[in-house]
Amino acid sequence: MKFVIADGQSELEALKAMQARSTEIDDNVTKTVQKIIADVRSRGDEALKEYTLKFDGVNTDCFELTSEDIDNAYNSVSGEIISALKRAAENIRDFHERQLQQSWLTTKENGIMLGQRVRGLKRVGIYVPGGRAAYPSSVLMNAIPAKVAGVKEIIMVTPPSKDGKVNPNILAAAKVAGVDRVFAVGGAQSVAALAYGTQTIPKVDKIVGPGNIFVATAKKLCFGVVDIDMIAGPSEILVIADETAEPKFLAADLMSQAEHDPMASAILLTTSKEIAEKTIEEIEKQKKALSKRSIIEESLENFGVVIVCKTLDDCINIANEIAPEHLELMVENPMEYLGRIDNAGSVFLGKYAPEPLGDYFAGPNHVLPTSGTARFFSPLSVDAFVKKSSFIYYTKEALEKGRDDIVALAECEGLTAHANSIKVRF
Amino acid sequence: MKFVIADGQSELEALKAMQARSTEIDDNVTKTVQKIIADVRSRGDEALKEYTLKFDGVNTDCFELTSEDIDNAYNSVSGEIISALKRAAENIRDFHERQLQQSWLTTKENGIMLGQRVRGLKRVGIYVPGGRAAYPSSVLMNAIPAKVAGVKEIIMVTPPSKDGKVNPNILAAAKVAGVDRVFAVGGAQSVAALAYGTQTIPKVDKIVGPGNIFVATAKKLCFGVVDIDMIAGPSEILVIADETAEPKFLAADLMSQAEHDPMASAILLTTSKEIAEKTIEEIEKQKKALSKRSIIEESLENFGVVIVCKTLDDCINIANEIAPEHLELMVENPMEYLGRIDNAGSVFLGKYAPEPLGDYFAGPNHVLPTSGTARFFSPLSVDAFVKKSSFIYYTKEALEKGRDDIVALAECEGLTAHANSIKVRF
Repeated sequence: MKFVIADGQSELEALKAMQARSTEIDDNVTKTVQKIIADVRSRGDEALKEYTLKFDGVNTDCFELTSEDIDNAYNSVSGEIISALKRAAENIRDFHERQLQQSWLTTKENGIMLGQRVRGLKRVGIYVPGGRAAYPSSVLMNAIPAKVAGVKEIIMVTPPSKDGKVNPNILAAAKVAGVDRVFAVGGAQSVAALAYGTQTIPKVDKIVGPGNIFVATAKKLCFGVVDIDMIAGPSEILVIADETAEPKFLAADLMSQAEHDPMASAILLTTSKEIAEKTIEEIEKQKKALSKRSIIEESLENFGVVIVCKTLDDCINIANEIAPEHLELMVENPMEYLGRIDNAGSVFLGKYAPEPLGDYFAGPNHVLPTSGTARFFSPLSVDAFVKKSSFIYYTKEALEKGRDDIVALAECEGLTAHANSIKVRF
Repeated sequence: MKFVIADGQSELEALKAMQARSTEIDDNVTKTVQKIIADVRSRGDEALKEYTLKFDGVNTDCFELTSEDIDNAYNSVSGEIISALKRAAENIRDFHERQLQQSWLTTKENGIMLGQRVRGLKRVGIYVPGGRAAYPSSVLMNAIPAKVAGVKEIIMVTPPSKDGKVNPNILAAAKVAGVDRVFAVGGAQSVAALAYGTQTIPKVDKIVGPGNIFVATAKKLCFGVVDIDMIAGPSEILVIADETAEPKFLAADLMSQAEHDPMASAILLTTSKEIAEKTIEEIEKQKKALSKRSIIEESLENFGVVIVCKTLDDCINIANEIAPEHLELMVENPMEYLGRIDNAGSVFLGKYAPEPLGDYFAGPNHVLPTSGTARFFSPLSVDAFVKKSSFIYYTKEALEKGRDDIVALAECEGLTAHANSIKVRF
């Protein structure tokens, strides 16, 4: 972990290295994925079958899991996990229900009515990675907002393991979250299937969920044919700590993010040199007991930074520059600083709001903008699963009042047929 | 214009031809644009200067217009146009102000506080095409929602004409809408400049606005580095008419869309064969006086369809399948059908709500999802110019209550450092 005393320059250099880690999509990957998409688009299930044999080593004609498959998986999961999933789902549902926007209508003089309708998308696809990144919590975080938005059908795709099965925790979470159909197919081929539809997999309106570089590239290439969520990069945490913070907690929280990925980034900004040093000691102590120690070490070595700043203001300015996915404010009276955070996916306030609380349980979404995109992207929300449309009702009197303005504007743009459509009515 | 009596098959074939017009991005365009982006990214203004000379034939070092330039343009525009722009801007502002979402906070037992903050993006770039597609109305429709959202700085880019100047109507609209800075640079190079920043053009958080295939491709390639609005395809109108409709109005409205582009599509669905035939006669009559007659003829020839359906229900089902950008309901009691329209960018209700009313004046945005993407995309709105972030405050008692669930979920995902960050606090 790098250790830097902020002097206006050193910290910028340290952060530049961290920011540079966001990788651009590579040409070869794009070409491979383009071919897969074209293939699934033209040959449908036959192509899916070939790619599933090639990439997952599974030979099957039947991708869809039956409700019996899902129930069996659910019943095989421990009661403790099922209860935890249900309580988490309840919190997630409660938070996301507060995001629901209403359709509205307004009336103006001469009988004008204008408004905006908001309704759930018809059908949404959720990608869930297989293997070690098979996270039931991600199923909840992607499916529940869709359900709350009023999406009529939620389709989950996930790569099968070598024996053709799907992780039972994933299926239990799918059942808790209200997923409608599950297909054991993954990779770019599953994204293509959701975008264009095949004989067995229905075409969806939007594809969400994390995936490897092939999945991310496929989503990017299908954008426009379907809607997609944001392109997720490697995860990051930034902790701002004053002298009241507990180094033990800081160390644990930084490592909770570092364990995700050797490309993950963990940054501590603190006004106290003592806290900084003690946190580094604590990391050394605590990491011995952690199963992903080697990933944590690699991630902290390359993308971990501790910066000692003069003031909390300096810390906040740097944080706003970085626009981290997760921001912990481990300071006295943390709520008082909330309004000064311009860019962050999710803000964790105080000693007892560690980042994993948000990953699993508190309710806000854990799908958050990464790699500095909190500057313009937002957490996954109910908004991502609705479509809006506007409507206009005008009376003859109302149109007559606007007539000259509309004709003038249409004619100044050289669009005489637009002007004609107004004139012809009077 | 094709004329089809719906029989369950003929209309589907007619519509397939129309839907197939959405063009995929071409490989050569992508390569050209990738090179331009890389070039602007590495050489900044120097590259901009070269591309502006090459593509626009203008040799300049100074891309930014002064406020004097803008004031002079504004003063050169007729008072009639300025007043029309101002009245349109007022309606647009009024409609979009109703879209503003509030930040919110909720409290739960044990002192938990959760919430979602909503704030305007810091800096937004608006692309405005030059030449014949230089539409002041588009400046209003893109800039005003950004302004309402609380965006701090709005940057407009637009290609210069051969004499290095910018269309004064565009500049007048920019002034009315509250655009902060204007640069006379266009094409893929201007998108790259907004995405990465150059010596003179500041890096923005989001790029919106229509453009040619090079601009659209550049936006798509820069997505992720900045946010973008949707990728716009050729425009379309679909009109549903019963026997009470006026063929004169129908003809005028269909042509108002057809004049945009030989790729534009105009569709009439009607329950009355008589109305269908009279509308076609009216088109022949009215088009003679229209300046874009040849574009209208080409567009209607290739992508114009009149379909006679048995029932209004059939009309509505076809419309929902097509998901048109603009949908006119020219029927008796149009408001009663609003709830049955599943997919449409904007719905125009009744005889006196022609599509150009929405293009210029009524208030709802005219930037709408095209080519069937109303299935999942929404009109441009204030939502497009805000970012959200969530926040979580937990007390020790609150965390203790969730502790076992969080640890169970983290451990079932194999993330022991996540579990550790909870355990270390007790």
